[in-house]
Amino acid sequence: MTSSPQQDIQNSVTFDLSAYLSERQKAVEVALDQAIANRYPETIYNAMRYSLMAGGKRLRPILCLSSCELVGGTEAMAMPAACALEMIHTMSLIHDDLPAMDNDDFRRGKPTNHKVYGEDIAILAGDGLLTYAFEFIAARTQDVPADRILQAIVHLGKAVGPGGLVGGQVVDLESEGNPDVTVETLTWIHRHKTGALLEACVACGAILGGASKSDLANLLQYAQDIGLAFQIVDDILDITASPEELGKTAGKDAQAQKATYPSFWGLDASRQEADRLISHAKSLLDPFGERAVPLQAIADYITARTH
Amino acid sequence: MTSSPQQDIQNSVTFDLSAYLSERQKAVEVALDQAIANRYPETIYNAMRYSLMAGGKRLRPILCLSSCELVGGTEAMAMPAACALEMIHTMSLIHDDLPAMDNDDFRRGKPTNHKVYGEDIAILAGDGLLTYAFEFIAARTQDVPADRILQAIVHLGKAVGPGGLVGGQVVDLESEGNPDVTVETLTWIHRHKTGALLEACVACGAILGGASKSDLANLLQYAQDIGLAFQIVDDILDITASPEELGKTAGKDAQAQKATYPSFWGLDASRQEADRLISHAKSLLDPFGERAVPLQAIADYITARTH
Repeated sequence: MTSSPQQDIQNSVTFDLSAYLSERQKAVEVALDQAIANRYPETIYNAMRYSLMAGGKRLRPILCLSSCELVGGTEAMAMPAACALEMIHTMSLIHDDLPAMDNDDFRRGKPTNHKVYGEDIAILAGDGLLTYAFEFIAARTQDVPADRILQAIVHLGKAVGPGGLVGGQVVDLESEGNPDVTVETLTWIHRHKTGALLEACVACGAILGGASKSDLANLLQYAQDIGLAFQIVDDILDITASPEELGKTAGKDAQAQKATYPSFWGLDASRQEADRLISHAKSLLDPFGERAVPLQAIADYITARTH
Repeated sequence: MTSSPQQDIQNSVTFDLSAYLSERQKAVEVALDQAIANRYPETIYNAMRYSLMAGGKRLRPILCLSSCELVGGTEAMAMPAACALEMIHTMSLIHDDLPAMDNDDFRRGKPTNHKVYGEDIAILAGDGLLTYAFEFIAARTQDVPADRILQAIVHLGKAVGPGGLVGGQVVDLESEGNPDVTVETLTWIHRHKTGALLEACVACGAILGGASKSDLANLLQYAQDIGLAFQIVDDILDITASPEELGKTAGKDAQAQKATYPSFWGLDASRQEADRLISHAKSLLDPFGERAVPLQAIADYITARTH
């Protein structure tokens, strides 16, 4: 099922994505700010807050909230899970940046966690955020049956553990500097390192909102499609964008001889594949009608960056 | 309420702690072995298993199982939580041993995780175990109402996060080499770094087994008492035991000018305080009658090492 041209026009006329994202982002910032107290021992709470409150588009929590509403739930039902997802995303960034991993000194223009607090505290800040995420979703989710909350926790665990984000990171580390990485391995890495958490965002939102099994399956495929499209677009931009557009050094992948989608398929075919994925992702949500507009607009927003 | 001398004699006659611990330990080993599959990417599952299956008394899972049975639950109800607790304990050891933390090359006579798999994989193995622990308890606990499982997860999260183990580790790191550490700070560190997880062991078992609020409160105090007694005894043994008895170098604390209970109170008063705590811990369980025997024997076992 695909959307009609008339429907697309109507949606683009009536829906202001940028206002939607900005409003949601503000709500998430407030909830995150309230989530972490500042008590003794201050060092660890400060270190956790330093990275958690460092900005970003908050796309993951927004996907969680929007998916919950898509299936008929409320923002309040999904907000603790949305915060938990951002805590876990932040944990993965803090640990990725460590000297033993990617050894990055800056993130979003600010010194990385270990540059400010030291490696020991940065490791513990990640552990603290990861743990607190599970506690937070279990303790703070309200007006949702307990078995749904448990289901969301299971989904989140699978997405982050060795069968998800952690496993993806391992294969990424093992593939570094290997010139024989196949496109299948590249996709495996992305699906686990970044895709699994995006899938968990829509899954947690949908489960908490009371989604049917088939709705959940469609949403998971939607997340998988936009996650992969996002990665392809990122690879394209690394080649085509100016440093100003990109906000970081361009051509880094080629310099590092990193396997990318354009290196396998070329630029044009990569663009086409990203478009196909986005179009497929959007069509999966057509059965939801008007309610699907925000998530469909978010999908479009991803490829819009390359045109 | 304290146990009568007659009761103590009867218990010690009929209860074989060493057989009890050994049988429980075997059951836990089997459950842990089955808990972690070995699939792609093998590196991370191998690294997680390497530390998880490295032996140890499995005291934490045993406390969880025994507490569940104490309040009328079954071993099966608490086994996933018991495994989760051991996974989290293992995670804390892997991260503690890292070069950025305690920088230990050996644990239980084997090279530490990062010496075998590298720092990057060791960090990820810890993250994997921590995440999987929460997934495991949520996904595998059976025949227990969902709201009790959620309550156990909340308790576990609090015990491990910045208000528990992680916070205790931070204050321990900050107190290193500080000659002005007070006995209050020392106790704060122990209560959070090691005590909180012990409390979570009895709490998870008791909650899953359907404990009343007052039973839970008594068990938490029991765990707090034996945890502190264990630490005091450890400090005493570091001074009094021969290297053969200790299985490690004695006098390490004094050499490192580390604050210990005997350094504040002297040896005799430290022994008396450990005895008082154990006796208090045991008396808290008297209302459970015969069912309390295993946990009371475990409490005795802790101070028996100093006599």
